[in-house]
Amino acid sequence: MEGLDELFPGETFEPVKKSYFKEAREHLDNLTKPVGSLGKLEDIAMRLYAISGGRMPVRVDPALLYTVVADHGVTAQNVSPFPQAVTRQMVNNFLNGGAAINVLCRASRISQKIVDAGCAGGSFKAHPILVDLHLGHGTDDISKGPAMSLETCKAALRAGLALALGAAQNGFACMGTGEMGIGNSTAATALYCAFLGFEPQEITGPGAGAGQAMIAHKASIIARALDANAEAVDSGNPVQILAALGGFEISILAGLMLGCASQSLPFVVDGFTCASAYVAACAIFQHLPDYAFLSHLSGEPGFKLVLEKLEPSQKPLLDLEMRLGEGTGAALAIPLLRSAAAVFNEMATFESAGVEARMSTNA
Amino acid sequence: MEGLDELFPGETFEPVKKSYFKEAREHLDNLTKPVGSLGKLEDIAMRLYAISGGRMPVRVDPALLYTVVADHGVTAQNVSPFPQAVTRQMVNNFLNGGAAINVLCRASRISQKIVDAGCAGGSFKAHPILVDLHLGHGTDDISKGPAMSLETCKAALRAGLALALGAAQNGFACMGTGEMGIGNSTAATALYCAFLGFEPQEITGPGAGAGQAMIAHKASIIARALDANAEAVDSGNPVQILAALGGFEISILAGLMLGCASQSLPFVVDGFTCASAYVAACAIFQHLPDYAFLSHLSGEPGFKLVLEKLEPSQKPLLDLEMRLGEGTGAALAIPLLRSAAAVFNEMATFESAGVEARMSTNA
Repeated sequence: MEGLDELFPGETFEPVKKSYFKEAREHLDNLTKPVGSLGKLEDIAMRLYAISGGRMPVRVDPALLYTVVADHGVTAQNVSPFPQAVTRQMVNNFLNGGAAINVLCRASRISQKIVDAGCAGGSFKAHPILVDLHLGHGTDDISKGPAMSLETCKAALRAGLALALGAAQNGFACMGTGEMGIGNSTAATALYCAFLGFEPQEITGPGAGAGQAMIAHKASIIARALDANAEAVDSGNPVQILAALGGFEISILAGLMLGCASQSLPFVVDGFTCASAYVAACAIFQHLPDYAFLSHLSGEPGFKLVLEKLEPSQKPLLDLEMRLGEGTGAALAIPLLRSAAAVFNEMATFESAGVEARMSTNA
Repeated sequence: MEGLDELFPGETFEPVKKSYFKEAREHLDNLTKPVGSLGKLEDIAMRLYAISGGRMPVRVDPALLYTVVADHGVTAQNVSPFPQAVTRQMVNNFLNGGAAINVLCRASRISQKIVDAGCAGGSFKAHPILVDLHLGHGTDDISKGPAMSLETCKAALRAGLALALGAAQNGFACMGTGEMGIGNSTAATALYCAFLGFEPQEITGPGAGAGQAMIAHKASIIARALDANAEAVDSGNPVQILAALGGFEISILAGLMLGCASQSLPFVVDGFTCASAYVAACAIFQHLPDYAFLSHLSGEPGFKLVLEKLEPSQKPLLDLEMRLGEGTGAALAIPLLRSAAAVFNEMATFESAGVEARMSTNA
């Protein structure tokens, strides 16, 4: 495969330096609380400090969440209980502020953008929170061939990276990811099969609400998609696999996550479909997990199996049995990152507060 | 035992009406998301609606968190690696804004009060966030007899109830609970043994950081406390048990939780020690769980066993391996309640947003 250099000329991609973790640990252990008593909140704080390159204060705000939307040709195969037109209707709902992700971003003071990555029916009218990256009127049907050309997939990755660069230039300190697109859990499941070696029936689930018969049919369509794109799957080239089985929104999200790494920005992965972009992006840059926070254990049943194949360090922060997408899991997790950063930045030390540390460390 | 009437004359205590859940479910199922796709967030929203008596909008804000602090005579038995003086030092840290709970309340826009329930060394100087309910210079040593008199325990319960009444009168819509007090995980563990039938060695853990030898010693002290207070334990009278084995802060917290129920206010239980106040309060009013949200699965190892004995409906919202207390778990969970309320109040319906519901409910 072409390297990161060819895909993203001029961008640098580095792992997070491990030495920052030791510095962060020492700082945390001086704060007025029993050592380690804030558990995963301390882990989050250490990671934020390391991602920032050891800068104080650690920042999460302002945070920005991108909900990237596209249509999928595979909806022609009856893989969702919702008609394709709902994608477009939901974009209007997003722009009008009435969807779950609007409500949750407002409740958690997260800035929000909606990205049209390629919905059926053409571009939308300009809107302050809309980013028009329209790559076509939905992907082609993956059960018959590739979702998009390799060139379109590269354009999507670069457009996603540009979103991260723009956000960094505008001073955002943390990125949330989200998606919407009728049919996209079919594409995501196909990507998991290709990248992680699952059989479709192992991990195909209801998505937005398919019943048992439709789930079985959906798995057979995914099997057909893997056959129709066998050459790409067998290539081991992540961009080729993404082009063959992914979606416009999934490809842009993969680029966005890679852009966060190049900008040393922490990002929060939403649920089942977003995590397929993450898995693809990790295949492109193996140190991407250094910059990622998995927000929640999606209620989509295959997600547990997917997580078992990821790095053991990558445990989701929340488990609320949610399976909506849009970025709703990320929007609930960002306040945890914010709280972790506040602990790291604002707590008094034993010395500054005049609090005695324990009598004996061996007690 | 005396009834609720005798303990809290003039207050009413009712279970939450089940009919509100059906109304809330119907409302949620009209919102622009697949049915049930927000998982536990929808359960929270339904419960908030039912607790409020079916009022729209459902409210969580403004939220208020009480950190109730006291000293424990049992610290004379060497049950904590921290000296008793740390309780008082931490109150000063709370008043100066440097402790974890200060930071987390600020990060999550939760109002905060510190309650001196009875610290060694006498009352503190007046401070805008301090509530002086000083019941004594710490409890008596439970390994030798009752922590406090029955009358003091009733006074603590009534003072806690009055805190909830005052908060309701001041317009607060949700209550967070927290505690601090060197030695109080010993009292909490003794209460779990008395109320739930555990043996001390089954559930005694490190608290603020005891090592293995100290934990074994702590369990033996708790066994001695159960012996020394056998008459109270065997009485089955929850107020008598609380007076014998509890703490000033634990008793006030139990009263605060009961006061939330009498005021139809949702409250959020923090971790291991707060939940012992909750268990005692549930023994006083059996429908208290209707009003309670358990914030997190404390890292204190005995907490899992305690939860298994509570109603199966009572699952904690978060699992971040935290074991600090102060209300830190509650402060992280309140934003989830806020998000659930926002979903319930603010999301568009399928009809208002012009979004098609699924093609077939049987798909």
